[in-house]
Amino acid sequence: MINQTIEQLLSHYSVRAFKDKALTESEIRLLVESAQAASTSNFVQAYSIIGVSDKKIRRELAQIAGGMDYVETTGQFFVFTADLNRNKSIAESKGANPASLDTTEKWLVAVIDAALAAQNMAIAAESLGLGICYIGGIRNNIKQVSDLLEIPDHAMPLFGLTIGYPEQNSAPKPRMPYELVYHENRYQQKEEGLYQAYDETISKYYTDRTGGVRSETWTEQIAKGMEHATRLDMKDFIESKKLGLK
Amino acid sequence: MINQTIEQLLSHYSVRAFKDKALTESEIRLLVESAQAASTSNFVQAYSIIGVSDKKIRRELAQIAGGMDYVETTGQFFVFTADLNRNKSIAESKGANPASLDTTEKWLVAVIDAALAAQNMAIAAESLGLGICYIGGIRNNIKQVSDLLEIPDHAMPLFGLTIGYPEQNSAPKPRMPYELVYHENRYQQKEEGLYQAYDETISKYYTDRTGGVRSETWTEQIAKGMEHATRLDMKDFIESKKLGLK
Repeated sequence: MINQTIEQLLSHYSVRAFKDKALTESEIRLLVESAQAASTSNFVQAYSIIGVSDKKIRRELAQIAGGMDYVETTGQFFVFTADLNRNKSIAESKGANPASLDTTEKWLVAVIDAALAAQNMAIAAESLGLGICYIGGIRNNIKQVSDLLEIPDHAMPLFGLTIGYPEQNSAPKPRMPYELVYHENRYQQKEEGLYQAYDETISKYYTDRTGGVRSETWTEQIAKGMEHATRLDMKDFIESKKLGLK
Repeated sequence: MINQTIEQLLSHYSVRAFKDKALTESEIRLLVESAQAASTSNFVQAYSIIGVSDKKIRRELAQIAGGMDYVETTGQFFVFTADLNRNKSIAESKGANPASLDTTEKWLVAVIDAALAAQNMAIAAESLGLGICYIGGIRNNIKQVSDLLEIPDHAMPLFGLTIGYPEQNSAPKPRMPYELVYHENRYQQKEEGLYQAYDETISKYYTDRTGGVRSETWTEQIAKGMEHATRLDMKDFIESKKLGLK
């Protein structure tokens, strides 16, 4: 049943080393059009894609993301942006009152629209032999990123997507077992014992890849990650953009 | 440059008529595993997928979504769920304090994780010749859906995804021009004139498909859609699930 497309999906890994070679305009256009082909809620197409080729802006974004040099040297750096500003402008040009503009529902639609489009772009890129990596790190200073990219009210940057010619081969990182992510008919609280084999898999994965420097299990990683509340400016930032106010 | 995968992405359309034939267990497993292969922020895998085979639950979901019969007769109905409950349980079992649990940042991570996974599933399904349709309509009564599927605190249903054997052929709905969605280096306010040709395309698309019953332009559709604030329970619902509180 597995075909070439599914084989590609299952072979995904993030790439964090790229040749310093820009994507061509036609590559960028094909990637953006592939992104646009994704489903969009009620056809609102409530996102924008900002392609950052300017190395100076890239450098600033790389620093914000935590010193990720490959944001600077990748083929193209895309910032996926939830965008209700476009629809607001359209509504106003028609004399309509955009009453839904600041609702949490519309904001959620824009976030989901943007993410579906991004994943289409990621898959299109990988089908062309390019490597990809999502960069949530732009949310380390979301206001600075928003200002840098001159993103207006009613819109906000969500994450970056680096796409370029890979200088690295890797292998997929094993995901949690199907039984843990899938629920039949109703949400089931999963038994702790189900994590044990997976924890061993992940511990071995890190041990093998780091020569023993890292060896934590998945549940250890999760527990640690949950302890630190980060990016606590997010709620205020979203509201400052007049999104999700009601 | 266009290959088979990109051709598939560009050929996407939503299917709203399905054979009443359930997906097999192995099809469901392959779809879920394809979903899981998508990128996940910091490897948190912060989503669950609830597969609804129970026709009684399906009927209720179909009604909530606005009388969408095909939710009942599709091959399988998946509800994508932002899920921090799993990670909370893991943290607590390790004696860790999940201080980040109720942050907007972590909730956003879970929403984006779920959406990326869903789009992988949609693409895997279409590569198998199956049809798909996202069902945002489950948010018409988000609390009822959450209760029906027994979704716990720190988790919430986001949207449905119907996947099944199509009884309908269609063609992609034209997306807005590349120039409108793509911005170079900085967000640019796009000129209104850029919408004109696209408006004509969409008006013709509706006219042709409905024999003239519908003929609105895209900007007319958007302006109208922005006027009505809907699902105004969303913000309170999210907070009631103890998500995005700070």
